[in-house]
Amino acid sequence: MREGMDNFEVLRHIPLFGGLPEDQLRVLAQCASQKSVRPGRQVFEDMAHSPGFYLVVWGRVKIFKSSPEGREQTIFVFGPGELFCLTAFADEYSPASATALEDTRILFFPAEVMEGVARREPALLFGIMLALSRRLKEALAVIEALSLQEIPQRLAIFLTHSLAKEGQGDSFELPFSQRELAKIIGATPETLSRVFRKLSDEGVLSMDGRTIRILERSALGALAQGDQAAD
Amino acid sequence: MREGMDNFEVLRHIPLFGGLPEDQLRVLAQCASQKSVRPGRQVFEDMAHSPGFYLVVWGRVKIFKSSPEGREQTIFVFGPGELFCLTAFADEYSPASATALEDTRILFFPAEVMEGVARREPALLFGIMLALSRRLKEALAVIEALSLQEIPQRLAIFLTHSLAKEGQGDSFELPFSQRELAKIIGATPETLSRVFRKLSDEGVLSMDGRTIRILERSALGALAQGDQAAD
Repeated sequence: MREGMDNFEVLRHIPLFGGLPEDQLRVLAQCASQKSVRPGRQVFEDMAHSPGFYLVVWGRVKIFKSSPEGREQTIFVFGPGELFCLTAFADEYSPASATALEDTRILFFPAEVMEGVARREPALLFGIMLALSRRLKEALAVIEALSLQEIPQRLAIFLTHSLAKEGQGDSFELPFSQRELAKIIGATPETLSRVFRKLSDEGVLSMDGRTIRILERSALGALAQGDQAAD
Repeated sequence: MREGMDNFEVLRHIPLFGGLPEDQLRVLAQCASQKSVRPGRQVFEDMAHSPGFYLVVWGRVKIFKSSPEGREQTIFVFGPGELFCLTAFADEYSPASATALEDTRILFFPAEVMEGVARREPALLFGIMLALSRRLKEALAVIEALSLQEIPQRLAIFLTHSLAKEGQGDSFELPFSQRELAKIIGATPETLSRVFRKLSDEGVLSMDGRTIRILERSALGALAQGDQAAD
């Protein structure tokens, strides 16, 4: 999606709204508001009243939990076109915090307008339900990683997914710092950096700034499957 | 819910179905099938094709992830009247495994019948969406526990919730073994038993078989809030 698009143009590019008739899309577009968020600035806070739905127009937002001492665990990272979908309409608070990872443009829909359109258009309701169910699956994968997988396996899974999703040939650009990546896979920055070094020494990958090149896909695949080689 | 209830009687006791007209409730009751599951037996498997929705009539079912080496992390425990709601209709596989913790009676609804009724009755669709959203919140709380809380805090939160939900006065009955509890809070049985002993030595609680009596609510509350005293 391009800079300067109006709400209606943005909505027409989102698959979730694809089944909506134009008049309902206009209802949503009219009530939605766009907002720019600078890197590191908060979109909303954990346990805050959740007034509606958020969509990333461009940029990237992380959803995370934090401890009183300031430690963080990132749960999701949302990019362009993604609806957050962390709550149903009737929910009274957001179950985590959201902060922009880079210059980000957000589209916000008040819950009652979205609910009104969803009641008239069950396709939208089904779409939101499907998105919620996808979030739940992703959350269950995070639980599996934190409780049952070692750091090298978690990193290998992240790299495998990133390569499949954003890779060009054998390499892809890490869309955020290693520090942010550590919060996603639940490692300290030191441990993450040690595992990266080990994989690099073993010839599995090479790094140049944020560009990661996978040299041995089969070794990475084995590690992602739980092979303990790089541990 | 009592033994020997027919499907229609069971459904009339479930809040999720409360808003449904009787004819739609009968459609669901006619397509649903009841099944008994012995303790330790599987209800469904992780990544298996998910043919529909499950409801606990009586007994208890745990939803969990397991590692190839057989380690387990329990994510939810469902009791009487709870609809599992781990997937939307269109989802093709279940994101975790389910096993009975005790003698359990399950009610199963084929996805296409449930979807048909939900398309006619948006109240049911909203109810399922709300249940999915509640599961997502619970999953996010598990992520917070595993990544940001120490074992004593996790145990204190579990005990506080259990007392509020199932307690009579200052005590409640643990509905499963300590071994199962360890899988819920993400501890080894040895660590859990050590933390229980410490809390008992400090006079915070006492245990008699599966009966747990909370002697110092304020100390337990402080620990649940992240006070490191019992660590």
